[in-house]
Amino acid sequence: MTDLPRAVRITEEGPREGFQIAPEPLQTADKIALIDALSATGVARLQVASFVSPKRVPGWADADAVVAGIAPRPGVAFTALWFNPQGLARALAFRDRLSVYGSITVAASEAFSRRNLNRDRAGQIAAMRENVAGHLAAGVPVNRVSVQAAFGCNFAGDIAPAQAVAAVADAMALAAETGCTIERISLADSMGWANPLLVERVVGEVRTRWPGQAVSLHLHDTRGLGIANALAGLRLGVADFDAAVGGTGGCPFAGHAGAPGNIATEELVMLCEEMGIATGIDIDALIAAGHLAERILGRTLPSALLRGGSLTGFRAKARAA
Amino acid sequence: MTDLPRAVRITEEGPREGFQIAPEPLQTADKIALIDALSATGVARLQVASFVSPKRVPGWADADAVVAGIAPRPGVAFTALWFNPQGLARALAFRDRLSVYGSITVAASEAFSRRNLNRDRAGQIAAMRENVAGHLAAGVPVNRVSVQAAFGCNFAGDIAPAQAVAAVADAMALAAETGCTIERISLADSMGWANPLLVERVVGEVRTRWPGQAVSLHLHDTRGLGIANALAGLRLGVADFDAAVGGTGGCPFAGHAGAPGNIATEELVMLCEEMGIATGIDIDALIAAGHLAERILGRTLPSALLRGGSLTGFRAKARAA
Repeated sequence: MTDLPRAVRITEEGPREGFQIAPEPLQTADKIALIDALSATGVARLQVASFVSPKRVPGWADADAVVAGIAPRPGVAFTALWFNPQGLARALAFRDRLSVYGSITVAASEAFSRRNLNRDRAGQIAAMRENVAGHLAAGVPVNRVSVQAAFGCNFAGDIAPAQAVAAVADAMALAAETGCTIERISLADSMGWANPLLVERVVGEVRTRWPGQAVSLHLHDTRGLGIANALAGLRLGVADFDAAVGGTGGCPFAGHAGAPGNIATEELVMLCEEMGIATGIDIDALIAAGHLAERILGRTLPSALLRGGSLTGFRAKARAA
Repeated sequence: MTDLPRAVRITEEGPREGFQIAPEPLQTADKIALIDALSATGVARLQVASFVSPKRVPGWADADAVVAGIAPRPGVAFTALWFNPQGLARALAFRDRLSVYGSITVAASEAFSRRNLNRDRAGQIAAMRENVAGHLAAGVPVNRVSVQAAFGCNFAGDIAPAQAVAAVADAMALAAETGCTIERISLADSMGWANPLLVERVVGEVRTRWPGQAVSLHLHDTRGLGIANALAGLRLGVADFDAAVGGTGGCPFAGHAGAPGNIATEELVMLCEEMGIATGIDIDALIAAGHLAERILGRTLPSALLRGGSLTGFRAKARAA
């Protein structure tokens, strides 16, 4: 395990992912309370809202009020998500509190692209070209490539590593054409199809083709392999992960409601810290935030660690005995 | 990942583990129905009952009736658990249907030994000496060493690899003294303290000291790292695992009720099969057995895969499209 990174950077996506799939609208104050609890855990990056049409995602109708209400915290980069110029304009109104940057987002699966992005692959590249121009015109850097369904798709089935690489290539070509400097290539297992060998293959091929680029992983735990897949990434030196407190989230357009969502941030922190990889996150504060998320969302979240608890208390008691 | 085994042998412990912690006694017929469903999945070894005192574990008062009622199935080794001569005698009454063999069981943690086995380490070796003699006198081979709390302990805290190795050494010395040929050394993460690096260290040290011995892993998913720990074992060539359908079970004497139990068999099968490692198990039949276990136990089990479902149907639909 010689390639394990010494530290990882985790983007907490629980608020953005969890709130959008809540069956009933949540109180704005509750959303703010959870975000404030999460920003106090030591997490480096925190995705706090989605500037999307309230018609499409009613759970985020209060995105502006949420961003206005959260407490600033030095050292934490607050980010948000948007898909169109209206969303970008709403984000730019909060340039003082948000880390605003753009992504070139594509899907490795044509079928998923049509369902989740409402366009085929060629249409998506055209839309992204317009999107990049809009960001650059507003002085917003576009520095991230994101590939959805990079490891498999509920509609298209298995996705070969070459398809994932081709999707990255499309996005990198657009970045070159528009003069954007990409800092991260994010590979998303949007529907929980990855396994550790596949993670190794896809990350390996992306690394070989774009040796200078940092790779980040957005993993789901739909079928229980999420943390093992994160381990496979860590072994290749991947040091940038998305995760969601409690394991909340999951793609609302993936066609299997009720399945577990993103990997649970606290389990990823547990995996890293127990192996000596620094996350900067206080695991017990994070577990407490996970319990708060359960109270706010009104349901038990899939994380095993929220039930089992950390080792901190057991270690302290054993030392004292 | 060159040391991945081509096939693994999984011991399904769901019935034994799950039934003993059920809050109310279950119907004998329900237990038999679940065991029959599990034996039809292709699993190699199935632990079906615990011949323990009904006073200590009321959930197993009907162990004899369960074993008498299950359908024999060629190719499946049915096993059971017992801790004393009375238990062994009950098992021997079913020698025609059970694979009866003995284990030398020790704990790497003195504190856990006292709580779970009711004896200190020296006392446990003395008890095991008597236990081995009883087995050999009955013509039952003792061919397995089992080390509980091999990776950490809720009462003693972290367990150094040297402590786990010392516990194996105690048991191997007793085996040599009594003329038993050990075929498997089972290392149990009884309370969910393991991480992938620790699995590598402990398995590595045991392998180095006893190079000819097969190592098996009994992992718990208390804190969400169970499947990642199994991956670490697979990478070292470990090809023998215990698991429990749905992730049921958990140690009743470990001091954290409500935490997830054993790794879920279906998630282990998913991990293996997706990486090309044969398990012999039909994952969809196993998932169906998991849902049956949930109906019988009257609660949702912790397995993510029971919620997310296998990839079989998605793959078939994608091929047909």
